[in-house]
Amino acid sequence: MILDAARSGPAPVRILGLDPGLRRTGWGVISLDGARLSHIAHGVIAPPESAPFAERLLQLFQEIAAVITEHAPDEAAVEETFVNMNPASTLKLGHARAAAIIAPAQAGLLVAEYAATVVKKALVGTGGADKAQVAFMVRRILPAAGAASADAADALAVAITHANSRKLTGLSAKARAAG
Amino acid sequence: MILDAARSGPAPVRILGLDPGLRRTGWGVISLDGARLSHIAHGVIAPPESAPFAERLLQLFQEIAAVITEHAPDEAAVEETFVNMNPASTLKLGHARAAAIIAPAQAGLLVAEYAATVVKKALVGTGGADKAQVAFMVRRILPAAGAASADAADALAVAITHANSRKLTGLSAKARAAG
Repeated sequence: MILDAARSGPAPVRILGLDPGLRRTGWGVISLDGARLSHIAHGVIAPPESAPFAERLLQLFQEIAAVITEHAPDEAAVEETFVNMNPASTLKLGHARAAAIIAPAQAGLLVAEYAATVVKKALVGTGGADKAQVAFMVRRILPAAGAASADAADALAVAITHANSRKLTGLSAKARAAG
Repeated sequence: MILDAARSGPAPVRILGLDPGLRRTGWGVISLDGARLSHIAHGVIAPPESAPFAERLLQLFQEIAAVITEHAPDEAAVEETFVNMNPASTLKLGHARAAAIIAPAQAGLLVAEYAATVVKKALVGTGGADKAQVAFMVRRILPAAGAASADAADALAVAITHANSRKLTGLSAKARAAG
């Protein structure tokens, strides 16, 4: 890797955050450059609900892979949403989370997972924060995120959480991947 | 497609059956030639439990993809296991099932799903049959399956169920995929 001569710290790291769901999966890409976070892109993947289950799942997987190809993140962070749901909904969420884990893992990215309460605490200071508070803090930290939808804001929030976790632990992507 | 001149019916169809689980995923490939079923191969994929979750899931996905490359099935059938588990186990099963659905779907295969009770009923005649009864019937239908483990026998059972379902409905793979 050729480092910029004017640069003293490590190279910027691109982080893909994912908030998986079969109906709507939010995604957001941010860049961590030293201690500075910046917004790269965000969006929501919503496979057509009328399609057969296997097709919806494949489409979710392929669109996540396309986001990775387009925005070339170095690492991925996936939210561990876990609300009280019926078993059928829990099983479906498991399917969507798997797509959100396999796609970046297949692309060679480190995949970190963060519980929803950890994400809320990292952004708002309390694990009991609501979605509006999380979205508010995402816009404060990343003004360029603008009016990201709730799902995309949650995805950016998990990416920010991972960035903070990297800063705290001081581990480089390489050291983590090798660990 | 060039048909064998001596052949009157449709070409044989290879079916991949999958009984997904994060710790152990059984797989079995059979061939349906007219009304005749024959055994091609079977096995169990067991990613190392010590590996990080994302790696285990990726390995499961990649080994299913490798089975598809090696045995070139035309269609896939996945068991919908659904026992009473705690939510965390249900979520994990959802992850494993997603790998078993995305891998064949990505390879362009039709993916059918069958409830465990439907598989048991198709093989043993009752939805309440136990694993030993299912394995016994798998060996009767496919003697070449020999002493397949319980997971591989379950996978062969779901492949047999799909073959029977195809025979009953009389639909070709093409018609089903287009439907």
